[in-house]
Amino acid sequence: MTFTQMLANAWQKNNSLLCVGLDPDPAKFPTHLHGRDDAIFAFCADIVDATADLVCAFKPQIAYFAARRAEDQLEALIAHIHQNHPGIPVILDAKRGDIGSTAEQYAIEAFERFKADAVTVNPYMGRDSVDPYLAYPDKGVILLCRTSNAGGSDLQFLEVGGNEKLYERVASLSANTWNTTGQIGLVVGATFPAEIARVREIVGDMPLLVPGIGAQGGDIEATVKAGRTANGTGLMINSSRAILYAGKDEHFAAAARRVAEETRDAINLYR
Amino acid sequence: MTFTQMLANAWQKNNSLLCVGLDPDPAKFPTHLHGRDDAIFAFCADIVDATADLVCAFKPQIAYFAARRAEDQLEALIAHIHQNHPGIPVILDAKRGDIGSTAEQYAIEAFERFKADAVTVNPYMGRDSVDPYLAYPDKGVILLCRTSNAGGSDLQFLEVGGNEKLYERVASLSANTWNTTGQIGLVVGATFPAEIARVREIVGDMPLLVPGIGAQGGDIEATVKAGRTANGTGLMINSSRAILYAGKDEHFAAAARRVAEETRDAINLYR
Repeated sequence: MTFTQMLANAWQKNNSLLCVGLDPDPAKFPTHLHGRDDAIFAFCADIVDATADLVCAFKPQIAYFAARRAEDQLEALIAHIHQNHPGIPVILDAKRGDIGSTAEQYAIEAFERFKADAVTVNPYMGRDSVDPYLAYPDKGVILLCRTSNAGGSDLQFLEVGGNEKLYERVASLSANTWNTTGQIGLVVGATFPAEIARVREIVGDMPLLVPGIGAQGGDIEATVKAGRTANGTGLMINSSRAILYAGKDEHFAAAARRVAEETRDAINLYR
Repeated sequence: MTFTQMLANAWQKNNSLLCVGLDPDPAKFPTHLHGRDDAIFAFCADIVDATADLVCAFKPQIAYFAARRAEDQLEALIAHIHQNHPGIPVILDAKRGDIGSTAEQYAIEAFERFKADAVTVNPYMGRDSVDPYLAYPDKGVILLCRTSNAGGSDLQFLEVGGNEKLYERVASLSANTWNTTGQIGLVVGATFPAEIARVREIVGDMPLLVPGIGAQGGDIEATVKAGRTANGTGLMINSSRAILYAGKDEHFAAAARRVAEETRDAINLYR
């Protein structure tokens, strides 16, 4: 099954546009996990198992694993999701971007080694830096368009001619030129609802990954109204820290579930 | 010692602007290395030992290690360079780019885990995605500006106002706003000598990492003339495949040394 089909099924089956971001920071783990060699895996797997029926996707952020020499735990985590929660797509948040021959290696990393269903990619190096990921026909490729951080405006908000901004060009290139196979989605931050709406105008029903609610302060109502498609889907609204660290003790997974459920329901109010 | 000082010393001591890129592809290794568990390390370490007196830097490309679950061999390789060839800076070619809290994790990956002296970073997410790397005062941060691939023009060559192109804006932001600590360098592809010259005009003596000679076809004379500073330095001219795979048998390291020496000397003709 392709990433696009998995995502559409998960939207429907779980009645959810919520994506849980897995950004494991051991300093924030409950104390009973401290000192365990597999603490990162154990923490994330508990979060996954507690929330899998509430989400449309999981999004592990590879930097949190790589900083701690824990690629093996990332492999184990993705395998755990595929085995125990089949049908829930895994988006590897890696934001890779390089020339074609190197992008082939990153595609092997994301799709063959980690077995992610989709990967985030940086568009700055252009189409031939994206094509190697598209060579895997079942996989999704989610390009940075308008990111949720303050510095996102430094380049993405520059006008590139005729009132078109750089992020709009990325959206139009993606929708009209690069996305010949229907595998592409875009990252558009929840901190900029007007720009989510603009991207939605440009790209039709393309899936949008929307980080920035929760700890980053984005507004759920504005995000959903700006980004939903006609059938009330089209969005993967990501929350990481607000869910992962909702509880601080051994009941952290139950606390995470409560916040995930509240977030899913808050999103669904505006679909 | 800071990256900038190491680089200046290596330019002088080895009389070289050549950076050897370490993009290890096991399928291209000589047959005597096939099947060895540490083949990637062994291959790269032999290349390093054969060329260390001819270069100003080594640049391992992390995708080639990550695709093969060989982060441990990358750690060992960088440790090998620091131990056996002290003073030669190691640039981790990772092209990371993410929001500040995630960039902090990538900075740990590059500087604390792998112990690189510099890292390549993608500027698409703006200044706050770059700052966490600059928080390591001894380290270098080399931002993508004008990349060597054909698709590089898709975004980087867009006009962002007043005849200024996006890559020129990245250069001017880097030189005039972001580089408050003198740690920043830029990637400018050898396939576009006119644009190397334009970047040099904008950024003064900032170090430029120039990929694209050798297998990618960039011209050495045009590159050096466009990019050298007044004292004949300022460049890290990268060659990877043309050096790594110069020989196909057990004498591959000697063949790599010959090509590296020829390349260094060809560069020096035009300094």
